[in-house]
Amino acid sequence: MPEFMDMHTGMSGITEDALAEAHAADVAIQGEENVTFKHAWADPETGTVFCLSEAPDAGAVNRIHERAGHPADRVFEVPVQA
Amino acid sequence: MPEFMDMHTGMSGITEDALAEAHAADVAIQGEENVTFKHAWADPETGTVFCLSEAPDAGAVNRIHERAGHPADRVFEVPVQA
Repeated sequence: MPEFMDMHTGMSGITEDALAEAHAADVAIQGEENVTFKHAWADPETGTVFCLSEAPDAGAVNRIHERAGHPADRVFEVPVQA
Repeated sequence: MPEFMDMHTGMSGITEDALAEAHAADVAIQGEENVTFKHAWADPETGTVFCLSEAPDAGAVNRIHERAGHPADRVFEVPVQA
């Protein structure tokens, strides 16, 4: 299954609780599109959040994030890793 | 030790070998600034690369990447995770 890194902006000041809540909202519905969100990293200073996931395609990642209330700015497929 | 996600652009068409080589160049000198590069994810389509690291500060991440020949476009400290 392909892996994706997606990016959100505009989340300045994001807290542990807020990120945990957003991540839980994704996880609650991710199965409906066979997406698995693995980890999220957030920078409260710039409001930037990165999410790593496995999914059939970028559209599925986008749709789950949108339905969970926090659409991604960009979704990158990341087939090359080290 | 703080964690960082940094981003590179302009690496369209990056291959497994090229990413492994870039990562090895970082790892070879990272100890000199107490940086540990943990993982790199690359999207050959857009030429975007994400690197996760542990480091004393963003400057150390930047300097190692620069000396290894691939300066990061941006370095984000990511203290909030889920």
